Amino acid sequence: MTDTPLSPGSTIGILGGGQLGRMLAMAAAELGLNCHIYCDEENAPAYEVAAYHTVGAYDDEAALRAFAQSVDVATLEFENVPAAAMAMVSKDAPVFPPPFAVEVSQDRLAEKRFAQELGIGVAPYREVKSLEELEAAVETLGRPGLLKTRRLGYDGKGQVKITDETDLAEAHELVGGVDALYERFIDFRCEVSVVAVRGQDGEMRFYDPSENRHENQILAETRIPARVPDEIVSNATDIARRIVEALDYRGVLCVELFYGGERAPAPLIVNEIAPRVHNSGHWTLDACAVSQFENHIRAVVGWPLGPCTRHANAVMKNLIGDDVKQWLELAREGNAGLHLYGKRHIRPGRKMGHITWLSAMNGEC
Amino acid sequence: MTDTPLSPGSTIGILGGGQLGRMLAMAAAELGLNCHIYCDEENAPAYEVAAYHTVGAYDDEAALRAFAQSVDVATLEFENVPAAAMAMVSKDAPVFPPPFAVEVSQDRLAEKRFAQELGIGVAPYREVKSLEELEAAVETLGRPGLLKTRRLGYDGKGQVKITDETDLAEAHELVGGVDALYERFIDFRCEVSVVAVRGQDGEMRFYDPSENRHENQILAETRIPARVPDEIVSNATDIARRIVEALDYRGVLCVELFYGGERAPAPLIVNEIAPRVHNSGHWTLDACAVSQFENHIRAVVGWPLGPCTRHANAVMKNLIGDDVKQWLELAREGNAGLHLYGKRHIRPGRKMGHITWLSAMNGEC
Repeated sequence: MTDTPLSPGSTIGILGGGQLGRMLAMAAAELGLNCHIYCDEENAPAYEVAAYHTVGAYDDEAALRAFAQSVDVATLEFENVPAAAMAMVSKDAPVFPPPFAVEVSQDRLAEKRFAQELGIGVAPYREVKSLEELEAAVETLGRPGLLKTRRLGYDGKGQVKITDETDLAEAHELVGGVDALYERFIDFRCEVSVVAVRGQDGEMRFYDPSENRHENQILAETRIPARVPDEIVSNATDIARRIVEALDYRGVLCVELFYGGERAPAPLIVNEIAPRVHNSGHWTLDACAVSQFENHIRAVVGWPLGPCTRHANAVMKNLIGDDVKQWLELAREGNAGLHLYGKRHIRPGRKMGHITWLSAMNGEC
Repeated sequence: MTDTPLSPGSTIGILGGGQLGRMLAMAAAELGLNCHIYCDEENAPAYEVAAYHTVGAYDDEAALRAFAQSVDVATLEFENVPAAAMAMVSKDAPVFPPPFAVEVSQDRLAEKRFAQELGIGVAPYREVKSLEELEAAVETLGRPGLLKTRRLGYDGKGQVKITDETDLAEAHELVGGVDALYERFIDFRCEVSVVAVRGQDGEMRFYDPSENRHENQILAETRIPARVPDEIVSNATDIARRIVEALDYRGVLCVELFYGGERAPAPLIVNEIAPRVHNSGHWTLDACAVSQFENHIRAVVGWPLGPCTRHANAVMKNLIGDDVKQWLELAREGNAGLHLYGKRHIRPGRKMGHITWLSAMNGEC
């Protein structure tokens, strides 16, 4: 394990080469640290801003080990890195976050059980290993609801909505007939997420919870501060704290929560735990002295954490698919940070960039 | 010339690969733009964060032209790029800032004459082409003063201080016997600099003037706001405006001024014009929504300029030579942005990084 802080000039390995890896690599470069990106794509957004990159499959043992041997510490930028790949890398380099945290978040069932063991609310659910179990679960919990695969889900992938009209056999086939769970639909007021960071010395810091709005199951907009009661802000932060502690976590982690308001069974319910920097924390690039990306890098290399305080209110909007064609209009926006990910091809649903508008924290100042 | 804004995915060529090129390349990457760095060093700080780089001499015509043909627009990160190199590049790519501005700033005599033609104050000086002319100049202007080579000076290089004890023949030899000028020493209160930016459409914007403190003729600290009367702030900005307009400038330019207080012949005197992003503008990375680096990139690719407003007061300290060994203590500082340049070897006088402390603009808020 990394007991002493790594010096400037050290190399951080990053599994994954998307926009999160790109923004991590830039944060590392600001601190005089190099990055080595490992990714299975020929042209990944992170390559262009990293000192080194390897194009390799996540089951290519020789490539993974050579990568691990070339770095001083390793981390990841998406949570679906195969456990076997992480295990291979960890033979030659310390890996943060801890593999256990990644395993929990890769498996929706394990994630829910983990939260429940901590006494944190989750949406009512049943495990589904067959069509019969799906039928029984829907019978017990009622409709509407969501059938979700246990593994490999993000941005609405691996999910089917079950309404009154849905044919269950069809739905079961749609998710591929794999191990899944059925979750009753939660009528929440808004999604709130907390970006937390924990250093090698165990210190924890938290960015202010944000309010998130999704469109087509993809994050569309994040707003800071969240329009929820103060008590909810502190409860959300407390939930993040308990999760980070229980996972003996190192690095940045994001907890997505549903805020149901007074009517809900529990005011806050865990939707997802992401063991990485998170889209709902992109606003920290423009509104904080130290962003989630820099704080993740600091945690990974054993440096003291930076402050999570912010100097502005913020609204972050994702630029998805054709949205990015508006780049020239967006570049004209005053007091906004525009971030484009250098992706060569626009595809529907693809995150191409984001923009964060800043405003004064105290209107009266 | 660049009449229409270059699209994201375009490539900007940068002559020079130091920390300024590195920070320019990162700013470009944030906007989805690629950089190609051209530098004569084997390991330059900018290479690690740029999509492409060429190691080549500044008189290697073939390498320069191949570089120029690979980019959509070119710029520079240090003002001593040989005029011939710029001319070669401009055969195949538009170059900003305009070569005339670079030529003026490369020649201390041309720079002074240019300022004088605009009615802007300069320190009393005489051209010095021989020892005899030096003796006559010192006789006329008095001591103490500075003997400065006309070309290739920065960070105190190419300068010799002339005191009562100085042997003039020795001093003349020290600067290499080349064309020079003798300048009477100005007893100024502080140095103030203005970072200005002008877009392709002619729009001009200005960051708030900073107050600079030098040690051993190298910038040690920049403070925002400058502790000078409001009238001086607006006069300094006006001087920058006149210079930028007269040069028909495109991109970021910095004007260094001496503020002499009420006793001085003119309250503000131009010390230097730097046709590039400047060390005294590094604070904009942490205290502004859009930094000098991003605004230079925006100007070069023909995008609308970003705001030059700041959200905080700032004190920027350069980490020179061994200062950088304090990186761990500096990383512990709250509300500060730490920036390390990834340079592999520490040398006395070498700029290794900087740190910017932020504080609230209005103590009462």
